[in-house]
Amino acid sequence: MTATIPTTDPAPAPAPATATAEVPADPATATRRPGYRRLPVQQRREQLIAVALELFASRPPEEVSLDDVAEAAGASRPLVYRYFAGKQQLYEAALRSAAEELSGRFTVPPDGTPTEQLAAVLDRYFEFVAEHHTGYGALLRGGSVVETARTGAIVDEVRRVALRRTLRHLGVREAAGPRLTLLVRSWISVVEASALTWLDEGRQIEPESLRDWLIDQFVVMTAATAAHDPQTAGVLTALLDRDPQAVALLHRLGR
Amino acid sequence: MTATIPTTDPAPAPAPATATAEVPADPATATRRPGYRRLPVQQRREQLIAVALELFASRPPEEVSLDDVAEAAGASRPLVYRYFAGKQQLYEAALRSAAEELSGRFTVPPDGTPTEQLAAVLDRYFEFVAEHHTGYGALLRGGSVVETARTGAIVDEVRRVALRRTLRHLGVREAAGPRLTLLVRSWISVVEASALTWLDEGRQIEPESLRDWLIDQFVVMTAATAAHDPQTAGVLTALLDRDPQAVALLHRLGR
Repeated sequence: MTATIPTTDPAPAPAPATATAEVPADPATATRRPGYRRLPVQQRREQLIAVALELFASRPPEEVSLDDVAEAAGASRPLVYRYFAGKQQLYEAALRSAAEELSGRFTVPPDGTPTEQLAAVLDRYFEFVAEHHTGYGALLRGGSVVETARTGAIVDEVRRVALRRTLRHLGVREAAGPRLTLLVRSWISVVEASALTWLDEGRQIEPESLRDWLIDQFVVMTAATAAHDPQTAGVLTALLDRDPQAVALLHRLGR
Repeated sequence: MTATIPTTDPAPAPAPATATAEVPADPATATRRPGYRRLPVQQRREQLIAVALELFASRPPEEVSLDDVAEAAGASRPLVYRYFAGKQQLYEAALRSAAEELSGRFTVPPDGTPTEQLAAVLDRYFEFVAEHHTGYGALLRGGSVVETARTGAIVDEVRRVALRRTLRHLGVREAAGPRLTLLVRSWISVVEASALTWLDEGRQIEPESLRDWLIDQFVVMTAATAAHDPQTAGVLTALLDRDPQAVALLHRLGR
């Protein structure tokens, strides 16, 4: 097998003879590297992405090389190149995988009050941030060498999913007007800013405490918006009907 | 004069003979281009930056070329290269200039209640966003071709200035603890998210209305944080002592 560099995105060239198992360029490699073994094409691709994600999670992207990925995967450099044209392509594949995983965590659990349900989603969000701390920070802080219009689009898509899921969770069936959109997008930016602050300040605040703070912020931000927007007022009424904790919070503020 | 490309950042090579006036590469250029005239070095540099800022304000960075800047400035391309090694360097100089201008707008006016003073700063912020709409959006949305670690650092410095100024405005003399820092950084991210949403949604909300919404958000976010943090509680008490509008807002929420 030669190291072919694909010019289009993900699908690697089909393995020539066996169709499901890799044929290493040099059979000796298989014995030289202890972790090296043949893997079906799709499985190898997923393994390389998983290994890359792990490296990008705790090291800045500029400090991760394809050699590092190959070594951590127990694979040869040419083999990694067979799947990805270069580091940028591998980074984007890893980011896409992380974005899917994160978006999957936005599913609201069936039980609990609306704020309890939102709290469960935030717990999963902060678990993700803790697992991918360096990668999350590098990407959202901006200015990283691996950032492109494509990585920006992947991050924006996660934000759009978060917006849609939050609106659905709030029972918004019709199109969200400008003020309700502003409110939810702003709160999502508070979630991101607080995750970055949490990382920057050495995780001084407990994640559970941060989560409760974000829920409080959600309730009061919604209440302050409801005064000027009928659609948000409807959302607030529906929320308070089902959520005694949110009612208590607003009462405390008014005292 | 030859087109020398500086290797270090801004200072242009001193003009050889006259020291304060440019000598165009080709004297004919001076008559060919109607706007072309000799300018002292510092003045020319500032003019090129001002022209670039204007172009970057309303066009994505990838659609602005050095030729466009030269043409709009009534200068030759070699002359632009004498001051800036390339588009990236000119972009960063323009961004630095914009960042200074924006930071200058954070000065709080001497009169008014704390929220009125904050409102005046926000008015100036949204004027800046309106003036630099495309550039502001391209930079803060991320993924632009001109983004580097240096541009990221310039944006972060503006946020740090905003954080310091806001804390000083709130009368915080000692170091801000993690929760007060979290609050102010989060609110600054709400300002940015609302400016981006405002641009994305075709400026459907009036800037004055957006400003009032942001002030309300500031008050309720502070109040919700004060319940769990003595330092923020002190800030809130001082704010409410001087601000009847903020008191009225919290009373309305509690009803």
